[in-house]
Amino acid sequence: MIANDPYAELERRFARLSAVHRASAILNWDRSTMMPDGASDDRADQLATLGVIAHGMISGPDMPELLQRAAETRDLDPWRAANVREMRRRWVHESALPADLVEARTRATAACEMVWRGARKNADFKSLIPTLGEVLTVMRRVGEAKAAALGTSLYDALLDEFEPDGRAERIDTLFAELSDFLPDLLNRVLEEQRREPPPLPLDGPFPVEAQRRLGEALIRLIGFDFHHGRLDVSAHRFTGGTPDDVRITTRYDEADFARALMGVLHETGHGLYEAGLPRDWRRQPVGQARGMVLHESQSLLMEMQACRSEAFIAFAAPRMREAFGRSGPAWTADNIHRLYTRVARGFIRVDADEVTYPLHVMLRYRLERAMLAGDLPLADLPAAWNEGMRALLGITPPDDALGCLQDIHWPDGGWGYFPTYTLGALAAAQLFAAVRKTHPDLLAAISRGDFSILLNWLRASVHGKGSLLSTDQVLEQATGSGLGTAAFKAHLESRYLSA
Amino acid sequence: MIANDPYAELERRFARLSAVHRASAILNWDRSTMMPDGASDDRADQLATLGVIAHGMISGPDMPELLQRAAETRDLDPWRAANVREMRRRWVHESALPADLVEARTRATAACEMVWRGARKNADFKSLIPTLGEVLTVMRRVGEAKAAALGTSLYDALLDEFEPDGRAERIDTLFAELSDFLPDLLNRVLEEQRREPPPLPLDGPFPVEAQRRLGEALIRLIGFDFHHGRLDVSAHRFTGGTPDDVRITTRYDEADFARALMGVLHETGHGLYEAGLPRDWRRQPVGQARGMVLHESQSLLMEMQACRSEAFIAFAAPRMREAFGRSGPAWTADNIHRLYTRVARGFIRVDADEVTYPLHVMLRYRLERAMLAGDLPLADLPAAWNEGMRALLGITPPDDALGCLQDIHWPDGGWGYFPTYTLGALAAAQLFAAVRKTHPDLLAAISRGDFSILLNWLRASVHGKGSLLSTDQVLEQATGSGLGTAAFKAHLESRYLSA
Repeated sequence: MIANDPYAELERRFARLSAVHRASAILNWDRSTMMPDGASDDRADQLATLGVIAHGMISGPDMPELLQRAAETRDLDPWRAANVREMRRRWVHESALPADLVEARTRATAACEMVWRGARKNADFKSLIPTLGEVLTVMRRVGEAKAAALGTSLYDALLDEFEPDGRAERIDTLFAELSDFLPDLLNRVLEEQRREPPPLPLDGPFPVEAQRRLGEALIRLIGFDFHHGRLDVSAHRFTGGTPDDVRITTRYDEADFARALMGVLHETGHGLYEAGLPRDWRRQPVGQARGMVLHESQSLLMEMQACRSEAFIAFAAPRMREAFGRSGPAWTADNIHRLYTRVARGFIRVDADEVTYPLHVMLRYRLERAMLAGDLPLADLPAAWNEGMRALLGITPPDDALGCLQDIHWPDGGWGYFPTYTLGALAAAQLFAAVRKTHPDLLAAISRGDFSILLNWLRASVHGKGSLLSTDQVLEQATGSGLGTAAFKAHLESRYLSA
Repeated sequence: MIANDPYAELERRFARLSAVHRASAILNWDRSTMMPDGASDDRADQLATLGVIAHGMISGPDMPELLQRAAETRDLDPWRAANVREMRRRWVHESALPADLVEARTRATAACEMVWRGARKNADFKSLIPTLGEVLTVMRRVGEAKAAALGTSLYDALLDEFEPDGRAERIDTLFAELSDFLPDLLNRVLEEQRREPPPLPLDGPFPVEAQRRLGEALIRLIGFDFHHGRLDVSAHRFTGGTPDDVRITTRYDEADFARALMGVLHETGHGLYEAGLPRDWRRQPVGQARGMVLHESQSLLMEMQACRSEAFIAFAAPRMREAFGRSGPAWTADNIHRLYTRVARGFIRVDADEVTYPLHVMLRYRLERAMLAGDLPLADLPAAWNEGMRALLGITPPDDALGCLQDIHWPDGGWGYFPTYTLGALAAAQLFAAVRKTHPDLLAAISRGDFSILLNWLRASVHGKGSLLSTDQVLEQATGSGLGTAAFKAHLESRYLSA
């Protein structure tokens, strides 16, 4: 039976689906922060059941006709029309895969992730080949099925899950511009750094409780709303929960407060995006975050653009000294800023600075496309990785733990995810340049700890748009042009090269 | 379409239903412990949606036939046969109420609970009458609908939700025995107490962290498994979560550690019951706790029978002194035991000792039956309450906040719940007497902090039975007779009267 008002019927169904997804989000957060270890099978069963229920809600036999009729409804306003478009996207992703393929993916990635933990620990890539091969086979099937449904290439179909309408062709162009630019910039930055004495280290220990209080005070001031959110601890930091109940996490290291603090500021960027999503569309697809490019742009805008600026460090340095009861030359704003903008060639992506980070991403992007296309046999991955590191960064990992085994994404099925990190960095630079242009006093405000100009602009230009527009349309409206590399390049030159 | 194996089909459905219920249990726990205030609407929507989904899973049109055919299946072993019986019970409770009545109950209790908070604060019963009247009307309709489905009286139908197969007739007999016994006992106990100097108070403050550590150490030793559970803080203590993920909570008062500690031990009794439910039936109705009488018996056995014993206090007193760095005459085991077994006539049920507690419960039971039967108009409740307090306890509440407004149960729709507290106390005494008889060295073991004898006996006699047997059958097998008052009376005389 088909409803009289297909749009209203779809809104009703997707609101229920949203409730199941939001419940799952809290259960996922709990699993990483609160849940005792012994409950993992119990929780897996709960989440799998909710997944099956959600799948059932979206894949009813009448969905194609409902979506078709809703799309043909006249007089839908732009939000409702976009909502139908996003409903269809969800439906395509959910219904493109036969049940046995969904199950095969779950089984293959779960098995591979387990093996990967041991393989990384022992720097033993060979032991990973059989299960990673299964994941690759399954992900090819997933990509083929979604490509057929979406009418895209295999890689674009995988990318679409993380970045709707993302295209490899576009990424190739942007990454080519970066690879023309970054290696030379990196050499010049390192040369300049060598000419000065290195920054003084901040010596610990830094008690966890003092770190937590400092982080909480700073993000409260930035605009994180503890009436609708929490800050907790997990093994790997993340932002979870729901737009009305944002759960950000970090991990504290008593020897190094600086990293956990920047991590908290990074997750705060994600959290503010979620909290700022359009209130009227909380429970509909059009009300959700646009994709991982804009999501990562918000975390990197907060961490890299705003909070590693001289302006913010000038504001934060006295608060850091007070939080840990320290003083002396290492604790000047200038020294802390130099610590926070130190560039180095390193093996590990998650430890990389913003100059070298894109090089890590470009390598992974190139390799995962080659593997999916069948041009790079798994057995050759370590050699290809190390060769890429030499070419891009000029260093060779001493073993695969510091090389092709370092990331969970491939074992975990996250093929197509890597490029969004760097596209997010480009978008962050572009957005921050635009808000500075509109508000020339922005950095002065930030140096007083006033983030209201920035946050209001982001809410209006990005957060409040939900999924109404494409990533490029958001950027066009907010900055005057679609995603590009110019602002990012200008930012790196301005921050890392003397005039 | 009806499955070939109706029993297997029902197990499959109820396993999925269990996953939804277990997910909801964690979300409920989070709501009371972790959730920021601003997320309450968001969470209510998640839980309501999961409730609708659960209702849909259990109320399919083919359920009556499936249940009927499963019940007629030959060769079902006792666990499977009991499972079908418990599935039917769940189905009756879920399907007896028309959708509009479920919604009316949700709306009436939510509205009344809100009004009740203000009414209690202002000791203003009149302001509660309209919304409480609506709750009463709705609960009568609920009771009538369930009575028709279960073939019981209205009150028994409400009781059945908390204590399956519980009967008011039986409660009347047991409570009559208690009202013949308790008032006179109370007089004698108070007279004896007056003859001695009062116990010395334990003066705070007691830092929360030291309280938490002490509580955690004691319950770990009793057998609470932190690999499958947590201890947290909430406004009102409770046991939540799932059998593999037991979440107990307490509330700390820096001025009084004794109450929070006994609260933790009480919830540990509930938690051990959940954790000890039969492993093979975790996700089926027959694997769940039998009902609130046995549940409360487990918390009261742990708190009242085991942990307020001289044996346990002798073990715990040195650990209390160490935890708070105290010493002196107030901190002897004897003085602490006297504090923990102090009897007093008071207005508030939740603060009552085990001698007066049943009197509070008997009053509420009598009044809720009269209100449901239409024999007591709401406007007359305060007078009837105060008259009952004078008759049973010899004291008159100075206002309704200390009288008929003190409990959330009636505003919240928990009609039929109150008697399970006292039935649980009877069962606790009966079970503890039985295990002491089987193991004469039980108290000696407890005085060494060894709870293994007790826990092993409870696991075999109560926890591991799930819902295989009725409450009376569990007690008969474990203690030689169904629920009675003899052991409880003997316990009170032995603990509170000198020989």
